[in-house]
Amino acid sequence: MRLARAAPLLVRTAATAATADPAAALKAGDALRSRPRRFTEDDVAAYAGVSGDRNPVHLDDAFARGAGGFQSGRVVHGMLVASLFPALIASHFPGAVYASQSLKFSAPVYVGDEVVAQVQALQIKAAGARHIVKFATKCFTDDEETLAIDGEAIAFLPTLKLCTEAIE
Amino acid sequence: MRLARAAPLLVRTAATAATADPAAALKAGDALRSRPRRFTEDDVAAYAGVSGDRNPVHLDDAFARGAGGFQSGRVVHGMLVASLFPALIASHFPGAVYASQSLKFSAPVYVGDEVVAQVQALQIKAAGARHIVKFATKCFTDDEETLAIDGEAIAFLPTLKLCTEAIE
Repeated sequence: MRLARAAPLLVRTAATAATADPAAALKAGDALRSRPRRFTEDDVAAYAGVSGDRNPVHLDDAFARGAGGFQSGRVVHGMLVASLFPALIASHFPGAVYASQSLKFSAPVYVGDEVVAQVQALQIKAAGARHIVKFATKCFTDDEETLAIDGEAIAFLPTLKLCTEAIE
Repeated sequence: MRLARAAPLLVRTAATAATADPAAALKAGDALRSRPRRFTEDDVAAYAGVSGDRNPVHLDDAFARGAGGFQSGRVVHGMLVASLFPALIASHFPGAVYASQSLKFSAPVYVGDEVVAQVQALQIKAAGARHIVKFATKCFTDDEETLAIDGEAIAFLPTLKLCTEAIE
């Protein structure tokens, strides 16, 4: 089952996107999930370079464990982990435009942790030729036992039709 | 004047951080500003690589102008522009840990646009050995005439003392 409605724990997975019914369209309740992702040291270094965020909690293991208070060392930049939400939305709806995002960082994501992002459509409204969709946005670690990031996003989607060639 | 209080438009600039009074401590009303930054094509490509967000509005000029509806072409990922907020906070308070961030994307930031980020301390509370600070977070373009991103962040700071060797 690749598209589940009104059932937050039954979700469409990106892994099955290529075989999707091309007529499938997003409905309120639908959830999309990312492939599991591990942010590596190189990812964190690349992000530190492009963002300019060289906070030692992300780059210096001893600092992260000591002054930073992170028992497992370096943590991934929260905003890098949160980038999975627009990435997930855009992979299914190329041309999506973000209007807002709220983020609560509930638990650290350590370098190398496996992370899964999920976005669930809460409300859908027509907005001219586009649709405006409010999503619940969640990111999990620890085999999905730990909620690392919680929040909501609002995005303009050019269509509700799910892209059958999801950009990976 | 490098540290202004209760005056949102008079702000401390990162450019003067190195000459800061080492005893200076953050107070409610203080604002910190980033150096002007232009996100290049290479920045956007690097961010697309590390985040996995390959939305064509960021990477394909013709798509951005056409289906994307962005008259000046490719736009910078909103979450990349928003990375300036934690970068700015961490540059003055190394070891800062983000608790939350809200973001309203009000205007597009095009590749090559000059952007300035500002964070202003709204509330400061002691939290054990650390301090928890709520910041207003704003990002401007067009010589600061256009508010591109508006929101708030909450961060735990290890100290309120401003770092005199701001990480740039």
